[in-house]
Amino acid sequence: MMNGPMKIFSGRSHLDLSQRICHILDVPLGKSHVVRFANENLMVQIDENVRGADVFVIQTSCPPVNEGLVELLITVDALKHASAGRITAVIPYFPYVRSDKKDKPRISIAARLMADLLQTAGADRVVTMDLHAPQIQGFFRIPVDHLQATPIITDYLKGRDLTNHVLVAGDASEAKDVGRYANRLHLPMAIIDKRRYDDNDSAKAAHIIGDVAGKHAVIVDDEVATGGTLIEAANFLMERGALSVIAAFTHPVLAGSAVERLTASAIDRLVFTDSIPLQGKASPKFEVLSVADLFAKAIKRVHHGDSLSELFR
Amino acid sequence: MMNGPMKIFSGRSHLDLSQRICHILDVPLGKSHVVRFANENLMVQIDENVRGADVFVIQTSCPPVNEGLVELLITVDALKHASAGRITAVIPYFPYVRSDKKDKPRISIAARLMADLLQTAGADRVVTMDLHAPQIQGFFRIPVDHLQATPIITDYLKGRDLTNHVLVAGDASEAKDVGRYANRLHLPMAIIDKRRYDDNDSAKAAHIIGDVAGKHAVIVDDEVATGGTLIEAANFLMERGALSVIAAFTHPVLAGSAVERLTASAIDRLVFTDSIPLQGKASPKFEVLSVADLFAKAIKRVHHGDSLSELFR
Amino acid sequence: MMNGPMKIFSGRSHLDLSQRICHILDVPLGKSHVVRFANENLMVQIDENVRGADVFVIQTSCPPVNEGLVELLITVDALKHASAGRITAVIPYFPYVRSDKKDKPRISIAARLMADLLQTAGADRVVTMDLHAPQIQGFFRIPVDHLQATPIITDYLKGRDLTNHVLVAGDASEAKDVGRYANRLHLPMAIIDKRRYDDNDSAKAAHIIGDVAGKHAVIVDDEVATGGTLIEAANFLMERGALSVIAAFTHPVLAGSAVERLTASAIDRLVFTDSIPLQGKASPKFEVLSVADLFAKAIKRVHHGDSLSELFR
Amino acid sequence: MMNGPMKIFSGRSHLDLSQRICHILDVPLGKSHVVRFANENLMVQIDENVRGADVFVIQTSCPPVNEGLVELLITVDALKHASAGRITAVIPYFPYVRSDKKDKPRISIAARLMADLLQTAGADRVVTMDLHAPQIQGFFRIPVDHLQATPIITDYLKGRDLTNHVLVAGDASEAKDVGRYANRLHLPMAIIDKRRYDDNDSAKAAHIIGDVAGKHAVIVDDEVATGGTLIEAANFLMERGALSVIAAFTHPVLAGSAVERLTASAIDRLVFTDSIPLQGKASPKFEVLSVADLFAKAIKRVHHGDSLSELFR
Amino acid sequence: MMNGPMKIFSGRSHLDLSQRICHILDVPLGKSHVVRFANENLMVQIDENVRGADVFVIQTSCPPVNEGLVELLITVDALKHASAGRITAVIPYFPYVRSDKKDKPRISIAARLMADLLQTAGADRVVTMDLHAPQIQGFFRIPVDHLQATPIITDYLKGRDLTNHVLVAGDASEAKDVGRYANRLHLPMAIIDKRRYDDNDSAKAAHIIGDVAGKHAVIVDDEVATGGTLIEAANFLMERGALSVIAAFTHPVLAGSAVERLTASAIDRLVFTDSIPLQGKASPKFEVLSVADLFAKAIKRVHHGDSLSELFR
Amino acid sequence: MMNGPMKIFSGRSHLDLSQRICHILDVPLGKSHVVRFANENLMVQIDENVRGADVFVIQTSCPPVNEGLVELLITVDALKHASAGRITAVIPYFPYVRSDKKDKPRISIAARLMADLLQTAGADRVVTMDLHAPQIQGFFRIPVDHLQATPIITDYLKGRDLTNHVLVAGDASEAKDVGRYANRLHLPMAIIDKRRYDDNDSAKAAHIIGDVAGKHAVIVDDEVATGGTLIEAANFLMERGALSVIAAFTHPVLAGSAVERLTASAIDRLVFTDSIPLQGKASPKFEVLSVADLFAKAIKRVHHGDSLSELFR
Repeated sequence: MMNGPMKIFSGRSHLDLSQRICHILDVPLGKSHVVRFANENLMVQIDENVRGADVFVIQTSCPPVNEGLVELLITVDALKHASAGRITAVIPYFPYVRSDKKDKPRISIAARLMADLLQTAGADRVVTMDLHAPQIQGFFRIPVDHLQATPIITDYLKGRDLTNHVLVAGDASEAKDVGRYANRLHLPMAIIDKRRYDDNDSAKAAHIIGDVAGKHAVIVDDEVATGGTLIEAANFLMERGALSVIAAFTHPVLAGSAVERLTASAIDRLVFTDSIPLQGKASPKFEVLSVADLFAKAIKRVHHGDSLSELFR
Repeated sequence: MMNGPMKIFSGRSHLDLSQRICHILDVPLGKSHVVRFANENLMVQIDENVRGADVFVIQTSCPPVNEGLVELLITVDALKHASAGRITAVIPYFPYVRSDKKDKPRISIAARLMADLLQTAGADRVVTMDLHAPQIQGFFRIPVDHLQATPIITDYLKGRDLTNHVLVAGDASEAKDVGRYANRLHLPMAIIDKRRYDDNDSAKAAHIIGDVAGKHAVIVDDEVATGGTLIEAANFLMERGALSVIAAFTHPVLAGSAVERLTASAIDRLVFTDSIPLQGKASPKFEVLSVADLFAKAIKRVHHGDSLSELFR
Repeated sequence: MMNGPMKIFSGRSHLDLSQRICHILDVPLGKSHVVRFANENLMVQIDENVRGADVFVIQTSCPPVNEGLVELLITVDALKHASAGRITAVIPYFPYVRSDKKDKPRISIAARLMADLLQTAGADRVVTMDLHAPQIQGFFRIPVDHLQATPIITDYLKGRDLTNHVLVAGDASEAKDVGRYANRLHLPMAIIDKRRYDDNDSAKAAHIIGDVAGKHAVIVDDEVATGGTLIEAANFLMERGALSVIAAFTHPVLAGSAVERLTASAIDRLVFTDSIPLQGKASPKFEVLSVADLFAKAIKRVHHGDSLSELFR
Repeated sequence: MMNGPMKIFSGRSHLDLSQRICHILDVPLGKSHVVRFANENLMVQIDENVRGADVFVIQTSCPPVNEGLVELLITVDALKHASAGRITAVIPYFPYVRSDKKDKPRISIAARLMADLLQTAGADRVVTMDLHAPQIQGFFRIPVDHLQATPIITDYLKGRDLTNHVLVAGDASEAKDVGRYANRLHLPMAIIDKRRYDDNDSAKAAHIIGDVAGKHAVIVDDEVATGGTLIEAANFLMERGALSVIAAFTHPVLAGSAVERLTASAIDRLVFTDSIPLQGKASPKFEVLSVADLFAKAIKRVHHGDSLSELFR
Repeated sequence: MMNGPMKIFSGRSHLDLSQRICHILDVPLGKSHVVRFANENLMVQIDENVRGADVFVIQTSCPPVNEGLVELLITVDALKHASAGRITAVIPYFPYVRSDKKDKPRISIAARLMADLLQTAGADRVVTMDLHAPQIQGFFRIPVDHLQATPIITDYLKGRDLTNHVLVAGDASEAKDVGRYANRLHLPMAIIDKRRYDDNDSAKAAHIIGDVAGKHAVIVDDEVATGGTLIEAANFLMERGALSVIAAFTHPVLAGSAVERLTASAIDRLVFTDSIPLQGKASPKFEVLSVADLFAKAIKRVHHGDSLSELFR
Repeated sequence: MMNGPMKIFSGRSHLDLSQRICHILDVPLGKSHVVRFANENLMVQIDENVRGADVFVIQTSCPPVNEGLVELLITVDALKHASAGRITAVIPYFPYVRSDKKDKPRISIAARLMADLLQTAGADRVVTMDLHAPQIQGFFRIPVDHLQATPIITDYLKGRDLTNHVLVAGDASEAKDVGRYANRLHLPMAIIDKRRYDDNDSAKAAHIIGDVAGKHAVIVDDEVATGGTLIEAANFLMERGALSVIAAFTHPVLAGSAVERLTASAIDRLVFTDSIPLQGKASPKFEVLSVADLFAKAIKRVHHGDSLSELFR
């Protein structure tokens, strides 16, 4: 074994997930603490020796998003100057992952900036999951292990009766990912065709491409933020004759009044992972699938130098 | 004006386009020459003073692809050490643009590597067009101007009778781009649903999502290489009752026997730009739209520090 | 003039100061806006052409501190990729400025990390004021203009009757800065000698070195956060026979219930600058001295390539 | 153990210290030699295999200062290209350590430049001692172990009768460090208040803050160069009624006629470490405390990946 | 042992040499494959886990030179992102090695650019042989092991009867290398004095410096490309009375019709290494000396951290 | 004009040359001064505003070599942080220029390290002259203007009667450069063939290749250090029947007792440039040719963005 001992530290964003990962791996969570001074500046102190260690820092992106990001950067910097042997940032939901292109003039491709900032702070590698676009992996000059939640979600769906179901993409840009699900589940797919009638207008559902009438619809996406788009899509599908709608996605951002709105919506069931902590948000419609086991396996393999692609065969 | 005088140099890949750009801008093509030694090593010499100049080097990616790439890197390096003030690589078709993700284990995201190599050689900025995915812009740490051929192609299509036409995506991953065309042309869209029945198998057209029967189909893509996929799609659409098929795309890679096969195919017409030289390839079905004017305008705006987003309003 | 036109943009942290600076310089504030999405991610868009421009971005550090920091990084990145000619981050109160040394094991020298992050994002230079220690300027590999509020504050104090006054350092580490004030004001100085009786204990005022009995004390510091330390010092001085206490400092962090506590304290008057916005915090004891004129002059000199050291002769 | 075998090399500056460190660690001094050509160029050759080794290079800063610095840079570069596994520069007295701020216009913060040069040459980490300001640690982007001589010196002082002693700071800027000694030794402190009456004038001792009359004074500093400032301070204290004066400092620069002047001065005793070689300089007043043991322990801990903070508990 | 397991991969340039090296080392050749798409883009896939491994990639420079170079860069990038522990590029004949100086205005020192590109792609070290000038080693910021074929060639020559032989440099710039041979073989040397009578003219053999009449001449060089220069030199020597001519060189570029011309020439025998594959080129005059053993030893020593200089004692 | 105003500063190494260059260019020497503290640390202060200026710093390498080097690095760093627009290091004799290859195991290629250090300090470009090998230019990633003294020296020689003269290389490694002189002067050449009979032995002149008997010999080299090699060569040539010997070289290092030994030697005349100050060294045999005019022209052309290759047509 070439790396030093494995040590896993957790930022404050998702302690529950970190603890479950440590439990699965049967290693104690590394000792560290964060002081938030009166002026909101953070001090992260690593409370045990990490010299030469193979360190993993788990921090997902969730509110307060920017504070969590700065906390991660400071933690990585503290580890680097504490002579950690290798630092892997484990980021189940990557910050600013949707800011991955320059679709307006003079904006930042912030997801790439985040990659740069992590490297500047001292990260040697990154483990993350279901980036909004696979190209985002190219934003990094350090090795990235890009985990996929698809098998977890499709395994769950396969456990249900999928007779007369159709997979639906909320708009054309989601068609590719939905196609991947369709292939795994051997289901037909349909796409909501959105149109933008004015430059300043947002796109609106105009047509359905493919058949949903008389079928159970499964809307697939990578993340749900306010739920607004998802609820509109569900309504649109019900109007087009869908028998029922369920939604499957990876990252439960669930911002603002998303939980209330989704609970009250036409959607029957929402299936997603715990890549982001629910922080008390709950609904009888929610089905949460844990990625703790996936991340535990990935960390173990990274530490031992085993191939990760075998995880997804 | 903050930059030195504008100087435009051309690699050997697409001299015709370079000359047309210079003609439009009314500037002489910069003097340089390439020696290819017996051992296939290249020597690029810049034959005029470029100290402090605002230099543009035009080199598209076309066979011999890797030699063209190395020629570009050597040219940029020669310009840097010749004290050019600013070096902009103008690359209508970016090399390795489809290698933009890690969809297999242990491969390179070569498009990102190309971005890195250009920066190492000394490029200060890049002007390119219709990258396979907009995320690729995030591979660069230097400013990139990403031009779009869409308006040129949609303007051409608008000049035709589009009654009873439908835009078609060759597979789900193209749906997003086709949606952009559909919005501009106010046409309906359809998607060929491809399925992969075996891990080692390639994806095959299985269904059509949306309606093509009794309609004229316009297949939209960003590039056509051997034409095989495109011809299969056309046949599939004709079998599904399409009245006719035309194809519109940006980059005419047209490798191998593509021209012969496309000429003999069910496709009525192929519309594309001159981002890649045809090098004598010809077909009565081809309609070539020049991007010389677009690049000339972009170079002029970059040189004068004018906004490029206005070009696409 | 070698630089492009001067453009001044403002982050959301201290718009009032930015506007006053622009007013003094008689230039319009650059157009930009920030969108804060439901998932707390920020999008900064620059709403006017900045190609080749000499851009200044004003953003001070104040709550929400980490969001303001990330906003600044994203803004600078957006400007860089929008081809700004030169980007100067104008940061009246530098974030994490007190995290300037490793006084505990395995912590980050976060002020240095901030310098690194700014450079990674694309800042070409920084203008800031009254860094906690002058060594912090060495954290940057880009030019830094380090402005001083001392003359503004001593000019104000000189306008008062300083008979029988003594300058006081709150602890030994402040003695050096207080010495600078003492020299300018020709006043004697005293130091509160703090002692730490136990490793886990915080330092407590134990003695006064120098004479304060029967004198008016002026406590000098670079920033005041909760005010706790300052109030303790004032009480200590009053117990030692001081006639009155006023406090002079540069950066009004004034966190938590600082305003209420300071207003209710033994301190007669608090003099400080507007390097941080008060955001409605008010007290009859406050005397706010504006640094808008100082920053306006500095920006003008940076833009024109004039010496800044002349500002402090 | 993750690192290769420990190898310790010594520059020419302080061979005696290097040999003592090796003796304590019971490892042979690595074989290398320096050739100084007629044109004063240096050639450093490493005379044993270092591939993969955990290499430490000991070089303190002493006359000829700049030659010693360049020798260190060349040695590190030679080790890097000889494929050393990890290179730690062990620098008891860091070069240009007092050039840590920009207190005049248009000067270099040379201590930061030194940090940059070391990294460019190939140093992976640095071990040093008693930097003039703790912020200097922030000049490095590589891990730095910052050792403290304070415990060695206070242990020595504790061995003396400290009744009726007072610790004295030579000027306000030293107050902070003297405070640290005062806390450890449970002694009162006093500060010499220096004033500058004219911009071009140097600062002169004007007052004493605190009590020294009838007491034994211990002046504490981090380094003594010509001794001029120290002798002035001693005279000033004696004039103010001090019973005796001793001086304690870390780095014995002792330049020019310092030894003669100090021996002839009012100072009773000078206590300092061997961070810099005395090169034959001697005085009956000198008490030299060796840091060989401290550095030996530090090197051992760095090599084994043990925590260094435990050394200073 | 600090490095991970040794893995050796081969580019497509010289599979035969790679296999022989693996055979000598008794390790299997690493599994990887190259796909060359219709658009000439390359995809390199590493077909086995390399995490943490000590990876060597063997790729010499030979036609198609630029494609081989890009293949190497992509392979190294793929290995880096596949988390290889250390990547050593083994390049028997370095690309663009003769482009090592700026002997014309505004050209690239392409050999240095190649070094930069390799580092950008992710190479940690390089093993190469007989660089055109020893200074080229200074183009790298990563460790380079520079192997020498001289002992292999001189050993071969020593096996012949060298009575009445003279070593000849083809022009003054080769004199230094020939001197090295002369020293090893205890033979006299001569130099062909070339003169350039016009700026645009190429240099022509004008005189012979030293004696060749009545002697057997051995022309020594580092590479032979078209053979033109070599044949001219041989003719010149025969005209000056040489009894016979043989040629010894390291790198058999042998471009164009070199084999036919050399076979038909006045040269009796050509001795060279297999640093470049002959790809079927054959002549009864050729004597090929394998460097497989030399490279196998070098790789083994690099892997085990043994000194390489011992190879050339 | 794109650059700011031209400003020329001089290090302490060769003030005379700097003043002559300024005189020719009719610009005042920039104001700066160096303080050498008691501890030998240097402080360089630039005494005039350089913001945005096109700054040239002239510093040649001469004793004290390493101090001059560090002074140059500190000066460049001070200029960078003083916001100079562009910094060109003008270094007539480059430090460590003979350390350009790794001809022993585990040494530094120090000339490359010097290039790295200059870039780290902040140099944007370098102007130097007659590097020991032209490959050294490849050590820089910033533009280098490599001036040649050859025309100055050959012009001087052409002014003498060159009948019956022969150019001589002191050993095989100088043959190439001597060939360049031979071409310009249309003279024959000869080479001293040195042999090394033992690994630890130095090379000794063994034979003369070419004819010197009855001829006047001109030994050509790039630098002369102690003169020992040159005097040996002269004696060797006289023994071989040369009528007289003169020496021509660029850089007069002239270390130790070189002047006395050369004056007393068999050499008639020594012709060299003032790239290094003579500092009082004088001999009736010396002929010093100034490069002030060459450097003045080069600086002017660099400032105005004119081609430098025209200087050497």
